[in-house]
Amino acid sequence: MSYFRPNIEAMSGYVPGEQPADPTDATVVKLNTNENPYPPSPEVMKAIAAIRIEDLRRYPSPVADRFRRTAGEVFDVRPEQVICGNGMDDILNITVRALAGPESPMAYPVPTYTLYAVLARLQEAAVREVPFRPDFSLPVEELVAARARVTYLVNPNAPTGTLVPVEDIARLADRLDGVLCIDEAYVDFAEHDCLALATSRPNVLVMRSMSKGYALAGLRFGFAIGSEDLIAGLMKVKDSYNVDAVAAAAASAALADRVYYEQTRRKVMAERDRLAKALAGLGLPCLPSQANFLLATCFRPTAGELYESLKRRRILVRYFDSPGLDDKLRITIGTPEQNDTLIAALTELAR
Amino acid sequence: MSYFRPNIEAMSGYVPGEQPADPTDATVVKLNTNENPYPPSPEVMKAIAAIRIEDLRRYPSPVADRFRRTAGEVFDVRPEQVICGNGMDDILNITVRALAGPESPMAYPVPTYTLYAVLARLQEAAVREVPFRPDFSLPVEELVAARARVTYLVNPNAPTGTLVPVEDIARLADRLDGVLCIDEAYVDFAEHDCLALATSRPNVLVMRSMSKGYALAGLRFGFAIGSEDLIAGLMKVKDSYNVDAVAAAAASAALADRVYYEQTRRKVMAERDRLAKALAGLGLPCLPSQANFLLATCFRPTAGELYESLKRRRILVRYFDSPGLDDKLRITIGTPEQNDTLIAALTELAR
Repeated sequence: MSYFRPNIEAMSGYVPGEQPADPTDATVVKLNTNENPYPPSPEVMKAIAAIRIEDLRRYPSPVADRFRRTAGEVFDVRPEQVICGNGMDDILNITVRALAGPESPMAYPVPTYTLYAVLARLQEAAVREVPFRPDFSLPVEELVAARARVTYLVNPNAPTGTLVPVEDIARLADRLDGVLCIDEAYVDFAEHDCLALATSRPNVLVMRSMSKGYALAGLRFGFAIGSEDLIAGLMKVKDSYNVDAVAAAAASAALADRVYYEQTRRKVMAERDRLAKALAGLGLPCLPSQANFLLATCFRPTAGELYESLKRRRILVRYFDSPGLDDKLRITIGTPEQNDTLIAALTELAR
Repeated sequence: MSYFRPNIEAMSGYVPGEQPADPTDATVVKLNTNENPYPPSPEVMKAIAAIRIEDLRRYPSPVADRFRRTAGEVFDVRPEQVICGNGMDDILNITVRALAGPESPMAYPVPTYTLYAVLARLQEAAVREVPFRPDFSLPVEELVAARARVTYLVNPNAPTGTLVPVEDIARLADRLDGVLCIDEAYVDFAEHDCLALATSRPNVLVMRSMSKGYALAGLRFGFAIGSEDLIAGLMKVKDSYNVDAVAAAAASAALADRVYYEQTRRKVMAERDRLAKALAGLGLPCLPSQANFLLATCFRPTAGELYESLKRRRILVRYFDSPGLDDKLRITIGTPEQNDTLIAALTELAR
């Protein structure tokens, strides 16, 4: 007999994208885990250099006070409307544990980030998966009919990169009895976001990551913004000290540097549009993406073959060997040089 | 109607000890949250200074490879026997979610760390609390009779500081059908630990913290050691990247510096014994502690009165206003100077 609960015994964990053994190996073109191709703001290294030994010896602020104040200023909300986490994964777990369960169904449109199915299983939550429309617009009626206690929407969506308009999401939020959690991990590369919904409605939470738009994947820092009541309830579920002092200082510095943030996101967005055109020209059409990656459809060679061929050339992209996705590659936007390397390789391979 | 699940709505979160607004305010003698009075190893600041910007931009090792290798060497185990977490709180959550639930009862002897009751409620786990014997020895028969899927034992216990012998714990482990998770957050200040049980039995996990013995409370790093099968199952439950790159590097450096670790723990243990004698001399007898704190029984003035009087003198200790504990103060071992300040204050107040 297993020591583990049946749901744990039956599940496999989420498998993250592969990481090269040596992260400083510049001969690997790593376009498989949606990291920002540019380094974090120079203010981040200054914040880390300013860490005092006392910041390590003592417990940190339980709620990451300093980051909450910075977020309050940047997003024009009260600090009490912000909750911080050890990466957005921590925020996702907190919401699932607070809102979903066997009698509290969670719903989300699919295809989407496969971690949601893992989290549901972990929580033994009832799940209602609702297909996106063929054009990846939001199935509002069907999501309302699902009568979930919590509805998740990844926007821009992963792995499609597609963005749903705010108006459709507002219509959904207003008709739901439960909470709408909007996963905006990739919103830093989009033309609009849903912050205004979270600040104007009691049942909307926007969840953000510092990993992509702020290039701090190594630090693990995420946060969410919503009504004070919603945030207060989520606070009961989080670990006492879920955010460490170094990560909080670095994330605060990155968030505060708006000029650097705006520059890097615009560079990534411009490269995304250039790469999408180049891939289309090579017979690899992409869905319209508002994220820092493209989902390209492959014909001949197949997606699996292209993935292997690129890997032999030390170019890593993401291949999902699952129904509906097995003819596609997810490609993270790199620097212009990395994207040129990819285009050159595909020019040889895709013909 | 609340948005939250009924168990969340009904519960209050765990309340951590208070933190002064300014952590560098040296006029506060902070003996309330069991931090190490000595700073972390000098190797820690070197490790943080060596962090490269690429370590921040990229996702970290999903399993904290480097720390696992270091722990493997220090504790003479295979890296696959080690799981790392964002503080020991993360490890506790992982074990509760993997092992406990409404049909998978958890048991633990009480009184103990009150977070366990919070975690059980969060998980809606069936709970079987078994009283320690009056001399704080282990109620082996009663814990076996509880027939739990997972049994927790805090050893040294909190907030009593008392230590249960390894032989009693071995007897318990061998008779349990489920898993025994030994919370060794304070074991760095004890004369013995249970590592040998975890490496010799399939159902024993020892859980460790870097917050106390290694003075890294601000960084959030914990780990656990057990059989490879047990660790592999827990890995499915953890977040994909639950440990950040900076914390992993700093924790590895702290763990590797055995000389510094041994020096500081011996200093704290010596001060603990000196302070216990002094408190007893002032009519404040303490339980025999193997942790970095003392639980002192107060008569007149009462524990609540002493707590307030000390606070007015800018000395923070922990007072639990709960049955069985409301005549006691939990006092973290400070530096010799801090302990002298406390003794001087109590000499005035306790007579």
